[in-house]
Amino acid sequence: MKLGDPRKAFLVPEGGKVKLTEKGADDLSIFPDGSKSDGEALFAEIALQIKAQQKVLYAQGKHRVLVIIQAMDTGGKDGCVKSVFASVDPQGITVKSFKKPTEEELAHDFLWRIHPHVPRSGGITVFNRSHYEDIIAVRVKKLYEDEVWKRRYRHVTDFEQMLAEEGTTILKLFLHISKAEQKRRLEARLRNPNKHWKFLPDDLADRERWAEFQHAYEDLISKTSTRHAPWYVIPADRKWFRNLAVGRLFADTLQDLDLEYPTVSWDPEEIRIND
Amino acid sequence: MKLGDPRKAFLVPEGGKVKLTEKGADDLSIFPDGSKSDGEALFAEIALQIKAQQKVLYAQGKHRVLVIIQAMDTGGKDGCVKSVFASVDPQGITVKSFKKPTEEELAHDFLWRIHPHVPRSGGITVFNRSHYEDIIAVRVKKLYEDEVWKRRYRHVTDFEQMLAEEGTTILKLFLHISKAEQKRRLEARLRNPNKHWKFLPDDLADRERWAEFQHAYEDLISKTSTRHAPWYVIPADRKWFRNLAVGRLFADTLQDLDLEYPTVSWDPEEIRIND
Repeated sequence: MKLGDPRKAFLVPEGGKVKLTEKGADDLSIFPDGSKSDGEALFAEIALQIKAQQKVLYAQGKHRVLVIIQAMDTGGKDGCVKSVFASVDPQGITVKSFKKPTEEELAHDFLWRIHPHVPRSGGITVFNRSHYEDIIAVRVKKLYEDEVWKRRYRHVTDFEQMLAEEGTTILKLFLHISKAEQKRRLEARLRNPNKHWKFLPDDLADRERWAEFQHAYEDLISKTSTRHAPWYVIPADRKWFRNLAVGRLFADTLQDLDLEYPTVSWDPEEIRIND
Repeated sequence: MKLGDPRKAFLVPEGGKVKLTEKGADDLSIFPDGSKSDGEALFAEIALQIKAQQKVLYAQGKHRVLVIIQAMDTGGKDGCVKSVFASVDPQGITVKSFKKPTEEELAHDFLWRIHPHVPRSGGITVFNRSHYEDIIAVRVKKLYEDEVWKRRYRHVTDFEQMLAEEGTTILKLFLHISKAEQKRRLEARLRNPNKHWKFLPDDLADRERWAEFQHAYEDLISKTSTRHAPWYVIPADRKWFRNLAVGRLFADTLQDLDLEYPTVSWDPEEIRIND
C-alpha cells in the first residue's frame, strides 16, 4: 500500500495562495489503494519510527522541534496530539494548549505568552492552538482595529524566522474539516455524556461564522507560510487519514535532521567501576 | 497472579524511620507467585487503567497530581517515567526534569525554580529529580553549612502541605537500587554506544560516596514523609517489578480520587446544530 508524500501534497508554498474550498477535507488521493485498516497498520509502523527518532533527538540535544496545530472547533487537534505523539517518551515532548488570553497576557504583546513555551534543544513541543488564534479570532470577532491583525502577519513570520535561524524546526498544521463533518462531530458530542464537557454552546456562534473563519484562515495560511515555517493543510475529515498524514509528515521531517547519538570525549575502555 | 498493595508495603509512614539497608532493592514479596512475564502482563492492564483514569481527570479538571521521583544514578527515573506514563495522553502530563541549578536559580530561594512547575487542575506532573536534590546534594557534597539542609526539611514539608491543602495529590517515589545493580547498569551503559551520552564519568564520584548518599536519603525520607505527601520506597533492582509497583500505586491513588466526567449546565436535547 503506497502512501504519497504529504509534505509535497499538502504544503502551502511560500507566496502561494490557498483556497480551502478547493482543498478536499476528504482528499485521500495520496493513499489511492489504501483502506482504513491499511492506513492504521501503516500508521502503527510510523508511530514506532517516531518513537525511535525521538530517542535520538533527545539524546543528541541539538535540534528543537515545534509543531503548531490549528483547526476549526472539532477539527481534531486533541485527537491528533494523542494519536501521533502518544508513543513518544513523555519526557521528550511538551504539549502546550493556548486558551483565551488572560488579563495578564493581554497586558503584554501577543507573543509574550508564547515565547516561554518554545522547545528546548532535544525537545519536541506541540502547540495546541497558538499565536495564530491572536490573528484569527481578532480578525473574525473584530476585537481590535484591522491594523492589528494585519501587522501581526509580519510579527509572526519575523518571530518564526528568528526561531528557525536559532535552530528550531517548525511545522504548522491546519487540520481541514468540512462543515458537514463538524456537524457530525458536534452531534456525536451531544450524544455522548462523557464528551459533554468538550461541547461549549458558544462554539455554535463560531460555526455560524464558518465562511468568515475559512476566509480568514485562507488569508492567514497564504501569508504566513514560509520556508522557515511552512503550513500544511491536512485533509482531516477522516481521523485515521489525518493521523497517517501527520505521522508521515512528522517522521519525514525528523528524518531530514542529522539525528545521531552524541559521541563522548572519554574512552569507555578506560573506565573501571568499583564494587 | 495476585499482587499485594504497594501503598501498604512500601509506604514510609509519617514519623517512621526507614533503614534502606533493611529494605530489599529486590524484594518481590508482594508478588509472590509472579514471574517477570506475569508482571509485564499485569502491568499492561494497569497502564490501560491509568490511561482511562487520566482521561476523566483531565475532563473533570478538578484534581492536580504531582509525582516526585528520586533515585541514585541509574536508579531508573527515566525508564520509570517512560514506562508508567507512556500510555497517557501527552496533553495531560508534564514531565519536568530538574538539573543542577543555574546561576539565576541559585540567586533565589531553592523552591523558586520548583513552584512554577506544579500541576494545574486536571493535570499530572512528574518531577524527575526535584527540590529534594537541593537537600541531598547540599548535604552530601557539603555545599552550604549544615543548617541550610536541616531547615529545608521544614521548608519542603510546609510547601508540600500547602500544595496538598490547595488540592494537589502528591506521591513521592524513591526508586531503591542496590550498589551491585548500579554497577551492572553502569557497565551496560559503557557497553552500549547509544547510551554513552547518559554516562557521566563524574557520576562515579557519587558512587564512591554511596553509603553517605544512602544515609542522607534515609534521613530525608524519614523526616519528610507526611500524610500530605508520603514517600514510598520502591524495590527497583528489577525494572519490570518497579514499573508494576509504581503503576499499581499510581492507579490506586487515582482510584481514590472522586473522578467523574463533569456535568454540564445546558440540556443536550435542546441544542440544534444547523447545516
